[in-house]
Amino acid sequence: MNQFTVTFQPDNIQVQVTAGSSVMDAAQKAGLPLKSTCGGVGTCGRCAIKVLQGEVQVEGSHLPLRLKEQGYTLACQTLIQGDAIIEIPASSRLSKHQILLQDKGRLADGLTDSLASYPLEPCCETITLSLSEPTLTENASDASRLLAALRKEQGREGELNLTLLRDLPATLRQAGWQVDVTLAREGRDIIRVTPAGSTRSFGLAIDLGTTTVAVSLLDLKTGRQIARNGGYNRQAAYGDDVISRIIHATSDDNGQEELRHAALATINELIVTMLAGAGIEAQEVITAVVAGNTTMIHLLLGVNPKYIRLQPYIPAAAEWPPVTAIEAGLAINPLAPVRLFPAVASYVGGDIVAGALFTGIARKEELALFIDIGTNGEMVLGNNDWLISCACSAGPAFEGSGITCGMRAMNGAIEGLTIDPETYEVELAVIGGGRPAGLCGSGLIDCLAKLKRAGIIDRTGSFQEVATPRLRHTDEGAEFILAWAAESITGRDIIISEADIKNLIRSKGAVFAGIQSLLKTVALEIEAIDKIIIAGGFGNYLNIPNAVEIGLLPDLPAAKYAFAGNTSLKGAELALLSWTAWQEALELARKMTYLELSAGNLFMEEFVSALFLPHTQLELFPSVANVTDMDRREG
Amino acid sequence: MNQFTVTFQPDNIQVQVTAGSSVMDAAQKAGLPLKSTCGGVGTCGRCAIKVLQGEVQVEGSHLPLRLKEQGYTLACQTLIQGDAIIEIPASSRLSKHQILLQDKGRLADGLTDSLASYPLEPCCETITLSLSEPTLTENASDASRLLAALRKEQGREGELNLTLLRDLPATLRQAGWQVDVTLAREGRDIIRVTPAGSTRSFGLAIDLGTTTVAVSLLDLKTGRQIARNGGYNRQAAYGDDVISRIIHATSDDNGQEELRHAALATINELIVTMLAGAGIEAQEVITAVVAGNTTMIHLLLGVNPKYIRLQPYIPAAAEWPPVTAIEAGLAINPLAPVRLFPAVASYVGGDIVAGALFTGIARKEELALFIDIGTNGEMVLGNNDWLISCACSAGPAFEGSGITCGMRAMNGAIEGLTIDPETYEVELAVIGGGRPAGLCGSGLIDCLAKLKRAGIIDRTGSFQEVATPRLRHTDEGAEFILAWAAESITGRDIIISEADIKNLIRSKGAVFAGIQSLLKTVALEIEAIDKIIIAGGFGNYLNIPNAVEIGLLPDLPAAKYAFAGNTSLKGAELALLSWTAWQEALELARKMTYLELSAGNLFMEEFVSALFLPHTQLELFPSVANVTDMDRREG
Repeated sequence: MNQFTVTFQPDNIQVQVTAGSSVMDAAQKAGLPLKSTCGGVGTCGRCAIKVLQGEVQVEGSHLPLRLKEQGYTLACQTLIQGDAIIEIPASSRLSKHQILLQDKGRLADGLTDSLASYPLEPCCETITLSLSEPTLTENASDASRLLAALRKEQGREGELNLTLLRDLPATLRQAGWQVDVTLAREGRDIIRVTPAGSTRSFGLAIDLGTTTVAVSLLDLKTGRQIARNGGYNRQAAYGDDVISRIIHATSDDNGQEELRHAALATINELIVTMLAGAGIEAQEVITAVVAGNTTMIHLLLGVNPKYIRLQPYIPAAAEWPPVTAIEAGLAINPLAPVRLFPAVASYVGGDIVAGALFTGIARKEELALFIDIGTNGEMVLGNNDWLISCACSAGPAFEGSGITCGMRAMNGAIEGLTIDPETYEVELAVIGGGRPAGLCGSGLIDCLAKLKRAGIIDRTGSFQEVATPRLRHTDEGAEFILAWAAESITGRDIIISEADIKNLIRSKGAVFAGIQSLLKTVALEIEAIDKIIIAGGFGNYLNIPNAVEIGLLPDLPAAKYAFAGNTSLKGAELALLSWTAWQEALELARKMTYLELSAGNLFMEEFVSALFLPHTQLELFPSVANVTDMDRREG
Repeated sequence: MNQFTVTFQPDNIQVQVTAGSSVMDAAQKAGLPLKSTCGGVGTCGRCAIKVLQGEVQVEGSHLPLRLKEQGYTLACQTLIQGDAIIEIPASSRLSKHQILLQDKGRLADGLTDSLASYPLEPCCETITLSLSEPTLTENASDASRLLAALRKEQGREGELNLTLLRDLPATLRQAGWQVDVTLAREGRDIIRVTPAGSTRSFGLAIDLGTTTVAVSLLDLKTGRQIARNGGYNRQAAYGDDVISRIIHATSDDNGQEELRHAALATINELIVTMLAGAGIEAQEVITAVVAGNTTMIHLLLGVNPKYIRLQPYIPAAAEWPPVTAIEAGLAINPLAPVRLFPAVASYVGGDIVAGALFTGIARKEELALFIDIGTNGEMVLGNNDWLISCACSAGPAFEGSGITCGMRAMNGAIEGLTIDPETYEVELAVIGGGRPAGLCGSGLIDCLAKLKRAGIIDRTGSFQEVATPRLRHTDEGAEFILAWAAESITGRDIIISEADIKNLIRSKGAVFAGIQSLLKTVALEIEAIDKIIIAGGFGNYLNIPNAVEIGLLPDLPAAKYAFAGNTSLKGAELALLSWTAWQEALELARKMTYLELSAGNLFMEEFVSALFLPHTQLELFPSVANVTDMDRREG
């Protein structure tokens, strides 16, 4: 096959690819992953690039007309036929920067010190053994000698696996018969045998998200965090959400392996960087805990995810067997036990269990609602007596996906705005303070609330005839211009279309309907909720009154709301450092009831009622009554 | 590198090798392994070949002069420099034929039906489970569904490992939710999940000997033997005995892996042939039991064997952890549990434990002596109350190695002879009935007895001046011609030299000194022994009165002797079919005392006393008194 050189600009990175490779694949190979929701079949229109020079073949694609006119093509539909120079606009990149690892610090009481309420007791402990040197008359095998010392000095039974046995003779003699032995807290497994003295023990907490991956490196002796690192999940090249990833995994012969390797490449790169930075050897990392949604864990372990997607949505497993790092593919001590947070169901995964663990909702008498809003809105309602969970397909709108000018919460994202009710002029709050590039989730929520409050849209989300050049009718329907091309980073108008608004209303309606379904199932009212805990990066920029105003979240006092940040990672850290916490997580997952929203009519009825701003039943949103008075008069 | 073609005759097999390859390597590549004791360094002189045609480079070697004069060179020292035709004489081949799998049927009472005294209870059992199909409301994961059914229908807890989980979703649906589940008898391990109905279960018993390997395929449901297969251990190319193998494993960078692969290649070839012949899939073989000496098991598992050879002779392990077939490298179901017989010490291995199990010596009140004579003479003395074992370096003389005309017990081997005390004429009994090619162990023992009885050698093994052309003095010392060149297959005289005789006396002395050391350690006399059980191929052709006459075995009535054949393989079969027997084997190995003969002077004193025919203390051999009367008169 002919090899061609593709040069990416403005990065000036070159790669060699075979004739017929897509620019999408070439970019992936160059370490410049592109956005994609459709898995590279040319339908989502997110991977626009410009061929500056060279021979390419462009397949038919769903690129918006105005981009086409500006000379853009879709990377996934553009095939290399000769040396080429390609420009990747910022808007098509899966940026490697600006992952929000740090919370904004708005932690509610009782959440800050979860770790303090558990003893420091990692899943492995290291003890020093002093062995007697063998003689002709005292000639037990190396393994027997070690295990006898363990029994005598620690009163514990151990078992050496084949990998450790292979090198044990050399290790014991190099160590002069003084060794540090690392044992599992439960069972008989011996994980490591090293010369006594300078043995260090570290562990990893890993949050494997569909979009982002965060890894935390902890010292198991002190519980201290050594480093934290995050990046985008490289699986994104195969689709933005779990559904498109499952489709790729199950439709392509090698798809499952590609996704497994992409997840591992993401995690291992973060690990390698962190360890190098901290001066820690991979061998010294002797355990890991992974939290992720059910699909992510299937894909990470190479387990067939097919039936997660198909009714009745059955995962291969909810609890995972003990796995070693070498089996899992993690770049740490090969014998390190890797624990995976158990799931509750196909769409309430280990990330939610980790969050439920970290937030302590199963330890308290108060009734808590724990919500993680992403592509799916996952939520858990309950207390120390019972827990019920569900997942609603909120869609990726609040993540900025599927919205004309949607983007992730990073620099350039509009996170809030005001609209003058008289002039309809707009004032924007942009993350980073510069020019806007698009709207992130909190900006979209604010936008909805403000458009409604200014009377630009009605309760169904339809544009009203208001006199402003910002309201524009196009072939694709009406749209409102939030920032003119001249004011934006992208050089294009930042708009919100009526289709975007309807999309957002469906998303917020799904979340609220999920909450209502849980409450109705246990025959409780909104007022019974003592605390609402919001997880995830989305929560970091969320304005509660706005979210209540559009009917996304229940109308409860702001004091009942708390933000908990990346609870998946924090839960994994907790489980890494505390065996008791880990046992609680297993128990919590087993005890949690799962409400399948697609079974029965409850959810669908609630969903239809929630497709208004804020809701068909205004009495559910008393505090919104003031701002909606005008609507009522109009109604 | 240049490639040359080497043609081996009379097999007419061709292989391609790179310039500078040794003929030894080329022959190995051609599937024609050659004899070697030295590991291919040119010192043992066993791999003689003749270059019929072609360009070679011959390094200096220790080839006996007469072979050199006949145009032979050593395969390990002959390097290919062009296309060549090489003749491999029968005497240099590690024959693939004539492995003695079948016993001669001389089984003693109480040994024939060892299996009958144990219930048929393999380490795995297969049960059929009928699972309910999942629905939206009954939506447990596939794994939970399976484990719940197992709990409900069988009252058992199971654990699915990652490998099974990966394909479980597809398996369950293909099976229509009716599955056969194979479980370990103890613990929670699930080994296999298959569609219900036609599941078959087979197991392998493997005797991994230093020289030969035997494999037995059993139906686990019926206990019936399906097939049995044997072959030479391919490790022989790296040396004949365990010591030369350990040296190769620990001196060459890749030596350990080479030996591991050679053992696996030997076993797997036997397995593949058997399975193909029996119409059984590798997946259907769900467990294996391996018995072998301590070094063999180290090498098979890739465990560092270095310290087995060095004082104080410490193995890495005596008991082995649970290993799966994929970890071990066996070509059967990857998840099949592979159990390895525990050893007692570096030189009393799992083969001896398997033999002790099979012969039932630890179940009876009678005092038994179990002996396996090979390169090492390993022996166990004891009963249902106690067991003591030792190993003496008998050397490979009784296996025909290190003896001028020694050979294994195969067609052409002299297994017995008579010498006319007047004419000194010799009459030979040859295995297979044809012309002689050399002497096997039983022939050597008989030869010693008859030479002594005819007065040709004295009690120390030195030749006496007798008037016969068969006694010849050469530069290398005196030798006795058993068959003239014209009568032999090889076209050379079949002789026994004085050096051979001294070598054999050292070997028999070591074995008897071992027996005496065990007896003295427990303060018992020879007469206390109720039964002597002789294991191994050597026993098949052994004449007890002869062995007693030369002082190899204790002077006890023939009725107290029994031959048990390949007790290592039979013990493995027993442990394969009976979990109780396996537990007994573990117990037996733990309870067995090991007497290290190199610690203290006991053995050395006994050894020196035993360097006479039959012994310095003639009172230990009262039945030999008659035949030795003549000696006494002479003395």
